[in-house]
Amino acid sequence: MSKAIPSRSEDYSLWYNELVKKAGLAENSAVRGSMVIKPYGFAIWEKMQQTLDKMFKESGHENAYFPLFIPKSFFSKEADHVEGFAKECAVVTHYRLKNDEEKGGVTVDPDAKLEEELIVRPTSETVIWDSYKNWIQSYRDLPLLINQWANVVRWEMRTRLFLRTAEFLWQEGHTAHATKEEAEAETKQMLEVYADFAEKFMAVPVTKGVKTENERFAGALETYCIEAMMQDGKALQAGTSHFLGQNFAKAFDVKYATKEGKDEYVWGTSWGVSTRLMGALIMAHSDDDGLVLPPKLAPIQVVIVPIYRKDEELEKISEVANKFKSELQAKGISVKFDDRDTQKPGWKFAEYELKGVPVRIAIGPKDLEKGTVEIARRDTKEKQFVEQDKTVDFIEQLLDEIQENIYKKAADFKEENTRTADSYEEFKELLESKGGFIYAHWDGTSETEEKIKAETKATIRCIPLNSNEEEGTCIYSGKPSKGRVLFAKAY
Amino acid sequence: MSKAIPSRSEDYSLWYNELVKKAGLAENSAVRGSMVIKPYGFAIWEKMQQTLDKMFKESGHENAYFPLFIPKSFFSKEADHVEGFAKECAVVTHYRLKNDEEKGGVTVDPDAKLEEELIVRPTSETVIWDSYKNWIQSYRDLPLLINQWANVVRWEMRTRLFLRTAEFLWQEGHTAHATKEEAEAETKQMLEVYADFAEKFMAVPVTKGVKTENERFAGALETYCIEAMMQDGKALQAGTSHFLGQNFAKAFDVKYATKEGKDEYVWGTSWGVSTRLMGALIMAHSDDDGLVLPPKLAPIQVVIVPIYRKDEELEKISEVANKFKSELQAKGISVKFDDRDTQKPGWKFAEYELKGVPVRIAIGPKDLEKGTVEIARRDTKEKQFVEQDKTVDFIEQLLDEIQENIYKKAADFKEENTRTADSYEEFKELLESKGGFIYAHWDGTSETEEKIKAETKATIRCIPLNSNEEEGTCIYSGKPSKGRVLFAKAY
Repeated sequence: MSKAIPSRSEDYSLWYNELVKKAGLAENSAVRGSMVIKPYGFAIWEKMQQTLDKMFKESGHENAYFPLFIPKSFFSKEADHVEGFAKECAVVTHYRLKNDEEKGGVTVDPDAKLEEELIVRPTSETVIWDSYKNWIQSYRDLPLLINQWANVVRWEMRTRLFLRTAEFLWQEGHTAHATKEEAEAETKQMLEVYADFAEKFMAVPVTKGVKTENERFAGALETYCIEAMMQDGKALQAGTSHFLGQNFAKAFDVKYATKEGKDEYVWGTSWGVSTRLMGALIMAHSDDDGLVLPPKLAPIQVVIVPIYRKDEELEKISEVANKFKSELQAKGISVKFDDRDTQKPGWKFAEYELKGVPVRIAIGPKDLEKGTVEIARRDTKEKQFVEQDKTVDFIEQLLDEIQENIYKKAADFKEENTRTADSYEEFKELLESKGGFIYAHWDGTSETEEKIKAETKATIRCIPLNSNEEEGTCIYSGKPSKGRVLFAKAY
Repeated sequence: MSKAIPSRSEDYSLWYNELVKKAGLAENSAVRGSMVIKPYGFAIWEKMQQTLDKMFKESGHENAYFPLFIPKSFFSKEADHVEGFAKECAVVTHYRLKNDEEKGGVTVDPDAKLEEELIVRPTSETVIWDSYKNWIQSYRDLPLLINQWANVVRWEMRTRLFLRTAEFLWQEGHTAHATKEEAEAETKQMLEVYADFAEKFMAVPVTKGVKTENERFAGALETYCIEAMMQDGKALQAGTSHFLGQNFAKAFDVKYATKEGKDEYVWGTSWGVSTRLMGALIMAHSDDDGLVLPPKLAPIQVVIVPIYRKDEELEKISEVANKFKSELQAKGISVKFDDRDTQKPGWKFAEYELKGVPVRIAIGPKDLEKGTVEIARRDTKEKQFVEQDKTVDFIEQLLDEIQENIYKKAADFKEENTRTADSYEEFKELLESKGGFIYAHWDGTSETEEKIKAETKATIRCIPLNSNEEEGTCIYSGKPSKGRVLFAKAY
């Protein structure tokens, strides 16, 4: 099992693909661009979902569900939105099949053609704002703070498991507010929620910022984002929060009566994260032996492996193991006791390393004699013997330590691989030799941004929030710049 | 608010539709046959989901996620399945739109036609068994116990909120087993899980049984079901569990190596419940004033309404209310303190009756003087004064009592409206004059079943499990029968 996946240095991209498959996270399906999320992968996604859902509810949001299909005409109502989304999408044109008399099997029934084609939602602003029109009459109906967990489809030509798939799972928040200020505050609040989630649960440090006009969500006035760094130095956009202004309110005629009785358009936001986060989680921490999962998102936090030859040994070990299991579970820690007799301990060790289980307890006959167990942590691979009566407390503390350590390692890596460049030469040199994040001055034009992208493949990931104001000159055009922006190659 | 909805006796069907909309559960969307599940409706569905998900996991199942789209050719692999499902479904034929130069807006790009059309899943047996082919090699891989929460689409021509919609939410379990016996046991186990859920959480008594061949799931050897009775005496199929035999294993060539090294086809089951359960929940208990929710599925179990004229009164009431709120929450009871000053108490009373909140606490200045509160229960509309220091315990007990009472009321109603008929005349007379469930003898043929349906609109809901064996003669054909089956008109 130890050579189950290629090493990162050998082929980073292949390492990722093989890891996703071999660890039982996901696989390609027979449907082009659509993946199957396997039970172990889905269990991690469920933990992400539950955590985020709690955070959304604590910040006052409610869940709802809107239709999968969107009438084609809805997209044409918001000019930028149709440009950005309606083009590459799955189109439902018929609602019936019939027996194929010539070739056998079934064929599309030409008599069952829809009058208006339906688009499988790539995002739900249009269908949701069409509902909001009926839900919002007065200031009393605001703010409207709604989220939906759903599947969406974007017809991607080049797909990769979790990172870019035709169908993916996500949540999309859609809120409506009486004032611009309130909508802006909501946009920023949700960015903070995403950043908190990434750092505290995924153990992935992120840079918060604003997208340039080029990279903005189609239909938004401003797109905020969090950007994470993968182990190959590339950036991964991990979440976005959009200030929509009154664009969708105007497109769908959503007005409210103010306290003073005036009719005004409402202000909107939308924000989302997707199964792409799974890709970020995997690529940020894992190593050549497999997944490394932060304890807070690990479906199994502790695995117990018995080491024995005789059945009576297993019996005694099981007693101790089951005691640990129930004591740990009582503390809210998820434990698996793997007493299968169909696999050897070595096979199990490799298997749980591959699956990124944070803590492994091994118990053998000698441990029973000495009153100890062997505890191994997945992140550093360190092992040590711990007295049995101290094991539960030790593990409780160890899980916190691992969570912190994984974060710290990723944060150190991000810092080490974040640099500044003061000339285009230096920029290109750094990008080629070291990669990572590069802060550099930019003149603020899409033209320059596009030229740099065409020449180097690096894009502006964001204009960082809270960065120091620093006058300078654009590395490309030499024109004045008010501050550095974040460049990187990206997923 | 009290006349918000028509009465059941006036127009049962209109009562249901208006109740669903006015209570904020769901509404029709701009997309034909697709509903929007509004936040309050979705909160109830979430409670159902969480409860069921826990029950599935406790019985050893894991969640996963399979693609929304299914290649057309997959359906042709199982002959009955394609007959039952592939015909009325949404078909994706293209993957791109383009600007419409003539009419403006966007139009389907004829150059982006798919080589093979994709069907939006009406159910996922085919795409899942196509994956199982790769997941199952040996007996060690079995049983495979997987569930998925998903949206599905069936192109229904006549739709009704929750009961029959083109798109709906559901869960679908798909399991694979080494032996016939194990698969049959799984099928029955999941029927029991559904029946438990219906009776203990939804407070809806159900009849368990087996479907006739006519009503069997397309591709199953046997379909088990639970049937509930609505307040108009009609039946509603609330959940089904299918024994698939080796049909899908053969269609998708899924074999496993036995311990002895022989290759054999695996045995399958599938089982599902959907947002249709929302319809059952609403129609089973609610009255002319609105929803009646069983406490175990109510998003808000207790609402506190302050009754006051002056701000200082509200202040004192709020102190008491917030104390109750935190004490009740500490016991895991969900509480809302509605201190909005934009609505009067009478309006709030009607609103929470409409929304089916099981318990209402009203607190006014006189209550503060006397150290009491007024407690009203939604199911019986009874009110009483309770001493403040006994309120928390009283409510905890009251919620259990309401849960039981709602179930008992529904069970009594079901019993009262379940009858036997010994001749076709009697059958027709009972069906027209009283409706409800009718047990009658049937000769076991599809021909008789179809004739009775055509003549009376009643269908065989199921051949009940655990019914007494009783020889008799078919009410229609006079041929011999081995036991009574359950007839009813149904949703």
